Amino acid sequence: MTDDKRPQIVVLGGGFGGLTFCQVFSDPRARVTLIDRQNHHLFQPLLYQVATAGLSAPEIAQPIRSILADRQQVEVRMDEVVEIRPATREVITRQQTIPYDYLVIALGGVTTYFGHPEWEAFAPGLKTLEDAVRIRRKVLLAFEQAETATDPAVQRRLMTMVVVGGGPTGVELAGALVELARTVLHSDFRNIDPGQARIILIEASPVVLSNFPDDLAADATETLRRMGVEVHTSRKVKSMSAEGVELDNGEKVESVNIIWAAGVGANPLMRQLGVELDRAGRVKVNPDCSVPGHPEVFAIGDNASFIQPDGRPVPGVSPAAMQMARHVARIIEEELGSPGRDPLSRPAFRYWDKGSMATIGRSAAVAWIRDIHLTGFPAWVAWLVVHLLFLIGFRNKLAVLVQWAYSYFAYKRGARIISQPRP
Amino acid sequence: MTDDKRPQIVVLGGGFGGLTFCQVFSDPRARVTLIDRQNHHLFQPLLYQVATAGLSAPEIAQPIRSILADRQQVEVRMDEVVEIRPATREVITRQQTIPYDYLVIALGGVTTYFGHPEWEAFAPGLKTLEDAVRIRRKVLLAFEQAETATDPAVQRRLMTMVVVGGGPTGVELAGALVELARTVLHSDFRNIDPGQARIILIEASPVVLSNFPDDLAADATETLRRMGVEVHTSRKVKSMSAEGVELDNGEKVESVNIIWAAGVGANPLMRQLGVELDRAGRVKVNPDCSVPGHPEVFAIGDNASFIQPDGRPVPGVSPAAMQMARHVARIIEEELGSPGRDPLSRPAFRYWDKGSMATIGRSAAVAWIRDIHLTGFPAWVAWLVVHLLFLIGFRNKLAVLVQWAYSYFAYKRGARIISQPRP
Repeated sequence: MTDDKRPQIVVLGGGFGGLTFCQVFSDPRARVTLIDRQNHHLFQPLLYQVATAGLSAPEIAQPIRSILADRQQVEVRMDEVVEIRPATREVITRQQTIPYDYLVIALGGVTTYFGHPEWEAFAPGLKTLEDAVRIRRKVLLAFEQAETATDPAVQRRLMTMVVVGGGPTGVELAGALVELARTVLHSDFRNIDPGQARIILIEASPVVLSNFPDDLAADATETLRRMGVEVHTSRKVKSMSAEGVELDNGEKVESVNIIWAAGVGANPLMRQLGVELDRAGRVKVNPDCSVPGHPEVFAIGDNASFIQPDGRPVPGVSPAAMQMARHVARIIEEELGSPGRDPLSRPAFRYWDKGSMATIGRSAAVAWIRDIHLTGFPAWVAWLVVHLLFLIGFRNKLAVLVQWAYSYFAYKRGARIISQPRP
Repeated sequence: MTDDKRPQIVVLGGGFGGLTFCQVFSDPRARVTLIDRQNHHLFQPLLYQVATAGLSAPEIAQPIRSILADRQQVEVRMDEVVEIRPATREVITRQQTIPYDYLVIALGGVTTYFGHPEWEAFAPGLKTLEDAVRIRRKVLLAFEQAETATDPAVQRRLMTMVVVGGGPTGVELAGALVELARTVLHSDFRNIDPGQARIILIEASPVVLSNFPDDLAADATETLRRMGVEVHTSRKVKSMSAEGVELDNGEKVESVNIIWAAGVGANPLMRQLGVELDRAGRVKVNPDCSVPGHPEVFAIGDNASFIQPDGRPVPGVSPAAMQMARHVARIIEEELGSPGRDPLSRPAFRYWDKGSMATIGRSAAVAWIRDIHLTGFPAWVAWLVVHLLFLIGFRNKLAVLVQWAYSYFAYKRGARIISQPRP
């Protein structure tokens, strides 16, 4: 591409891990190329609000090259990775072959259906802006169709929404959907009562948010039920069709709106590395986050399976990806300063667990930071503040704040737009 | 649908005309059904800002049923009109047949290509949110592709944008595009200089904004040129392909980004009325805005061809559509109050010309209100204030104000999102 003779670092993915790497890596002795399929960094934690018409897509996305505009040694390429060749140290994209001296794999996860890829057609996942806009369209359209339908059975099926998976995304989706139906859409229809909509959350564990401390998981389950969500715990989906889902206890739910929030797997490209993967398809990385046998290749975030010294895995959350990115940036900077250094002398990554939080609805959330457990209004305020602070860009912070204030005081949502005509 | 025995008014279209009718018609002795293909009212004057990444789609759109939530006698149906049957007083939609006592046709215009429908594939028009998002995607993607391209000829073609039509939409698009390239994208790329992008505006008249007073049209032409737009006046498009356009003087312009802002025609459904249409396909309405031979049917806005007593036509602008809507609402209200009244005694519509305005770029616009002609900064402020005031909904006003302030002070744009993956 250029005659630049500096070592080439190639970063795959502009999510939390890849972007953080490019932001903190500051050694001018190397050049960095970031490759992403999309032109934007997506603030995934708020994606469910786009899916439920609370925020518009551009409010949680920012052009990657604009975020990195002042980092002169970083080049951003909108392109798709099709192959990784560790043997020859090359990445093959749709448009070209890029050699690397260091490779940082931060491609993130993909939605997986536990051996039922055919379910994707009935139950979209929620990983990209397109996913979110598609879910928003389906949900809003269902109410529009119910309003003009004359058969009560059809109306019921249209007004039944099933969320599969009771992790943070599933809980947040179910809460936002029940509020959409019961407060936002409430007085806008003439022939249906949106308050009669059924929101069903299906979770295989005995509680939702099973990775949270027991008291918070119980509180979240209880809060969802009080808001009107039908929470089915210890239940799995047995089969799925265009008509609805069947659960493992034989119960059938008729629904045209099924949303999949149950499985996140690693990118299929990981298999090309020829190294050991965990069950979710993530690379079992060395303590320094490098790929076994390839000290010049690192896998971070949802592409890495990292077991901490106490035996617990690092969870697949954005702070972990960002911490790994900083760790890898520091390792590469040090090696550029003292070439020939033994990779075995690299420091091990240590995960700093900041706790976790999930919002459930208006003034309702759960949060824990070490020994501090919050529920209800305090947890909700903590959630709002943390998410506003971590949103990238002043404009997005301000725009999201405006939307949230509007939703809170007006009981409305700012992005109730069906953005594509019906087929 | 119901056992309601009140007279049924059917309104086709939720644009400026149809929505205004539903907002001002307040006689409880009739019920009103509004039918629109979309679930949202679109603030068309700002659509070009969605196309050029300044605003996000939900910021200029509002759910129709939410705007009309407190008008209990109004029912909103998201549905598509496929046939109008004046003889039997019925409207056929995709989903049902709706009889009417009064019909208000406010379907708006469609993009027309002056006998060259094949040009649509190369040069999308700008009428809907989907159009705007598609143009935004094409424009932003062109710069991304130019960044990775290696052939300078390919880069030049990708960075050449052609706008056909120098009316307000074309002028606003060309101005916004040249600012996008020269200030917003300016420092975000490494291999191309977005400031070298060519923006070409083609207009058949000797000046742009030919419906404006001469001094303002001349000022707009001059301002665009100073901003770097290549303005070709007295030129028409002779042919078009995926490679670019050929003008009537034989000049060829290679471009992958052609935007059509030249022709607005009436909805093809008008032909089903069996009445006389003008060249643009609009109904030559009676002085009361009714359709000749059908006193119970009204055509307003871009569906009506209305010649004023002084021989000048009412222009196809939103204030005209809204004024006609109010006029028709008053006529129907009066007739409901005194049934059997002679339609010939209806008052004639009178257009109140409020003037017109078009923005060109940062601190640059033209505006005229009767004898007052404004240019430059005063015109631009007037444009901002008027557009903010007329935007529907407090949230949209606030959100757009935030975006504009951001763009003005940060020289950035808030919606630089390529919202669908490349094929």
